[in-house]
Amino acid sequence: MKLHNYFRSSASFRVRIALHLKGLAFDYIPVHIARGDHHTGPFAQLSADRLVPLLEDEGERLSQSMAIIEYLDEVQPEPALLPHDPVGRAHVRALAQSIACEIHPINNLRVLKYLVKELKLDEEAKNRWYRHWVREGLEAFERQLAQSPAGSTYCWGNTPTLADCCLVPQIFNGQRFDCDFSGLPRTMAAFEACMKLDAFQRAQPSQCPDAQA
Amino acid sequence: MKLHNYFRSSASFRVRIALHLKGLAFDYIPVHIARGDHHTGPFAQLSADRLVPLLEDEGERLSQSMAIIEYLDEVQPEPALLPHDPVGRAHVRALAQSIACEIHPINNLRVLKYLVKELKLDEEAKNRWYRHWVREGLEAFERQLAQSPAGSTYCWGNTPTLADCCLVPQIFNGQRFDCDFSGLPRTMAAFEACMKLDAFQRAQPSQCPDAQA
Repeated sequence: MKLHNYFRSSASFRVRIALHLKGLAFDYIPVHIARGDHHTGPFAQLSADRLVPLLEDEGERLSQSMAIIEYLDEVQPEPALLPHDPVGRAHVRALAQSIACEIHPINNLRVLKYLVKELKLDEEAKNRWYRHWVREGLEAFERQLAQSPAGSTYCWGNTPTLADCCLVPQIFNGQRFDCDFSGLPRTMAAFEACMKLDAFQRAQPSQCPDAQA
Repeated sequence: MKLHNYFRSSASFRVRIALHLKGLAFDYIPVHIARGDHHTGPFAQLSADRLVPLLEDEGERLSQSMAIIEYLDEVQPEPALLPHDPVGRAHVRALAQSIACEIHPINNLRVLKYLVKELKLDEEAKNRWYRHWVREGLEAFERQLAQSPAGSTYCWGNTPTLADCCLVPQIFNGQRFDCDFSGLPRTMAAFEACMKLDAFQRAQPSQCPDAQA
């Protein structure tokens, strides 16, 4: 497998976590998003949506981080990243989507660029935008976690799931923008539990070849 | 089943399509999002994330439209809204997420409200924002559809899938904002094929009780 990704991309980070949790080896292909390399050069030819991550596996080119993680979970079912019952699966997917559809897209690099270049927002207004959506989104996430099985170590139960693959990169990004994580005990406990695991440590941005270059 | 939703909500519309495609009966519970009823009153007590749609089924409260549709597909597998092979499923989920994670969240009602109230954008600048993300997102979607099986009537193959459940509401919303759909032949052909089906017709905003009230 080849993973085209960028060390700082939240969506790339999600897939790296899943690959490490499943113990799947992959070639790390860096795409320098901040420099715009996804719009030009060989990656633009390879990728239909011109977004990272892109996973190449057995001749297929797969995009969208949650779709890729579900694919990995289907082709290599253990350790499972979704519960086995439909209700549990629905809750875990909803948690993941609460981050991937409600928080992250609004704070994506291309949106921040539009705020600065087109709307002429200054640094402080841009940061206020960023923190607003993270805070509002994580408060909703915290309320959702109250529905998780009693005694859950991670977002849902006692093994990491798709929801944790999405949560951890969002917290990392929020930390870069100095977001307020106070009063989110369930969320931060799940984050801290994840960061004790080797797979999450190995997947983090600072461990990526393009961060170290 | 009870579906808490709003006629104009894109995410609600996705779930209505899926319910009609599967022939599942449901009680329609309107939540007036534009008036802010999701933040106050009984819905705020019922819903952890305070978003529509919310599906109540057998005592469970499920949120996030794509998670709900996957749940419906698991508890009532026919007609299937995802292919049976992992690669096909990955492509359909990626198409759905290209809309649900890349276009729709940036143009959500609460984001548009922030643009107007906090950033003081005028109507024209707000509409330019809206159309920019729809156009950029649908151009990427069009390129992705080139990877669909040859001769596909819908987004992926010859039966409607999760991808079509997401595409159709996005086109409806884009039409309200007078977006440019030129040069998107595959996308618009899939949209038009869907609109020939009774399930898509019955799910559309104008057919909802709260639109007619």
